[in-house]
Amino acid sequence: MHALQFEQTGDPRFVLKYRELPDPIPASDEVLVEVDTAGINPSDIKNVQGSFAKTHLPRIPGRDFAGIVRQGPANTIGKEVWGTGGDVGIIRDGSHAQFIVIPLAAVSVKPENITLADAATVGVSYITAWQSLISSGHLQKSESAIIIGANGSVGRAAIQIARWKGARVIGTVRDAKYQQDVMNAGADICINTSDENAQETLLTATNGHGANLVFDTVGGRMFEFGLRVLAEKGRQLVIASTEAHRVTFDLIDFYHHEAQLIGIDSMKLNLSDASALLEQMRPGFESGDFKPLPIAQHYPLEKGVEAYIASMNDIKGGKTMLHMK
Amino acid sequence: MHALQFEQTGDPRFVLKYRELPDPIPASDEVLVEVDTAGINPSDIKNVQGSFAKTHLPRIPGRDFAGIVRQGPANTIGKEVWGTGGDVGIIRDGSHAQFIVIPLAAVSVKPENITLADAATVGVSYITAWQSLISSGHLQKSESAIIIGANGSVGRAAIQIARWKGARVIGTVRDAKYQQDVMNAGADICINTSDENAQETLLTATNGHGANLVFDTVGGRMFEFGLRVLAEKGRQLVIASTEAHRVTFDLIDFYHHEAQLIGIDSMKLNLSDASALLEQMRPGFESGDFKPLPIAQHYPLEKGVEAYIASMNDIKGGKTMLHMK
Repeated sequence: MHALQFEQTGDPRFVLKYRELPDPIPASDEVLVEVDTAGINPSDIKNVQGSFAKTHLPRIPGRDFAGIVRQGPANTIGKEVWGTGGDVGIIRDGSHAQFIVIPLAAVSVKPENITLADAATVGVSYITAWQSLISSGHLQKSESAIIIGANGSVGRAAIQIARWKGARVIGTVRDAKYQQDVMNAGADICINTSDENAQETLLTATNGHGANLVFDTVGGRMFEFGLRVLAEKGRQLVIASTEAHRVTFDLIDFYHHEAQLIGIDSMKLNLSDASALLEQMRPGFESGDFKPLPIAQHYPLEKGVEAYIASMNDIKGGKTMLHMK
Repeated sequence: MHALQFEQTGDPRFVLKYRELPDPIPASDEVLVEVDTAGINPSDIKNVQGSFAKTHLPRIPGRDFAGIVRQGPANTIGKEVWGTGGDVGIIRDGSHAQFIVIPLAAVSVKPENITLADAATVGVSYITAWQSLISSGHLQKSESAIIIGANGSVGRAAIQIARWKGARVIGTVRDAKYQQDVMNAGADICINTSDENAQETLLTATNGHGANLVFDTVGGRMFEFGLRVLAEKGRQLVIASTEAHRVTFDLIDFYHHEAQLIGIDSMKLNLSDASALLEQMRPGFESGDFKPLPIAQHYPLEKGVEAYIASMNDIKGGKTMLHMK
């Protein structure tokens, strides 16, 4: 089969290669999936760059995929499946290839009403948003949720999950040009945090109290901004810290607010864990409450290295997808 | 009656006065308690100093008390009660007086096996530790708990609650002279964080994983130390930040650890809320699992201002108590 592979970590333009490799062979408790489409996520790039200590080399990267089961138990053959996992591309080969082997326990049939190409946009973004808002954040109907970085893929997934849950959804962006996209994605309002009165506007939008839940998909310099627009007993969920590892905040304000800060790392979920969450989300896709994420650019697998490079330029218009044929 | 009172906030030695005031009169849904003994807590001192925006002046300070009901429904008269509340001394008069009025809903009979003087040591310290470890931290049997500042009153209460819950209890102190006290209070081990290898020792003591729960009663420069000895998916509970309001930490480490930071402010619990928690803790005192806190010094009410000043010197040997007769 053809696949992207890296033998050492570093700049994807130098270490990532388009290769001819042997087709993988599933064990008795696994299935072989012919990948139709796979998304490139920021964590795939970080993985190639060497950010993850657990990555075994050589390795095929790629967490998200949609495809068709070609080998496995008879009742799975021909099924159109979707998936993702924090283990793929790290301790087992990933989806940026024509075939991927996954555990039988991770087989999840994609919603019938979306295409394979659209199903491959869902994985990391929706899993991370669901883990954050629902599993860890326990977002409730009629609560308010501020989504920092609402125009990113995780942010867009979060808008739809929060809206489906019945929360008031407030998006933030750092560039006015994305405000309409965030509104179109389903936010009740969208604030540009580059405006000097952004904090005041957010407090006004939450009746002066701040939000019950802040989902911070950015971190770094937005971290403390998030805490300042959090209500008493509010929960701030963090999944990233761009530009800065270290952040600073007022601990006395934090405990007087009885605030909670909750870290989430979707890479802790393996293929089977993630499959269980996709199963929970499938009805939302079937009903149309959850929509596949917008795609900014398409690449064939043989141009995968170019796709990685293009994706590194932080595409806010949508996802970068690899098509295997 | 006699009482301590302040008409303006500031240094207790100048603004706190020992006064003759009218006896308070309970409403139909309240009772009058003749205070036997009342503890002085750090928050009482901060209250007089002016740290709390909600304090109505003039005010009698004091959150904790034990005493005897003198007026109220017939079935309450003569009962020996204990209590505390984040509202007393703030928006209603507190316990540093011969009498205090409390809501009928806040009447809680003290355990029979401890004296009134000992019952008055319990309030804020146990309430805060219980809220933190049990209500917010959901400490489980066989988990490990690191208690930072284990020799303080809240720390000692936490040792006993964590031990009663069946957790492995690790205390930390900043001065070797308190290590034996912490062991005597029931910790499984006690580490001196002034030792340069303290972090390593704590990790070894938790099988290299860090603790499931860190209860940080100190904050400030201990805040990040706590995060470094926290296990994956661990919860760090914060109730204070001495010496520094602002703290710094690595947000990427935090979310990769899937850590949780939870702020707790016992002043958010009013007399009735706190009474409900004391009711939950009473069996622990009756069984001897929970012990009254050690008392460092006793003062009669008329020397209350001296007691405040003595208490401001951060007494680690135990609590400062006011006796009303």
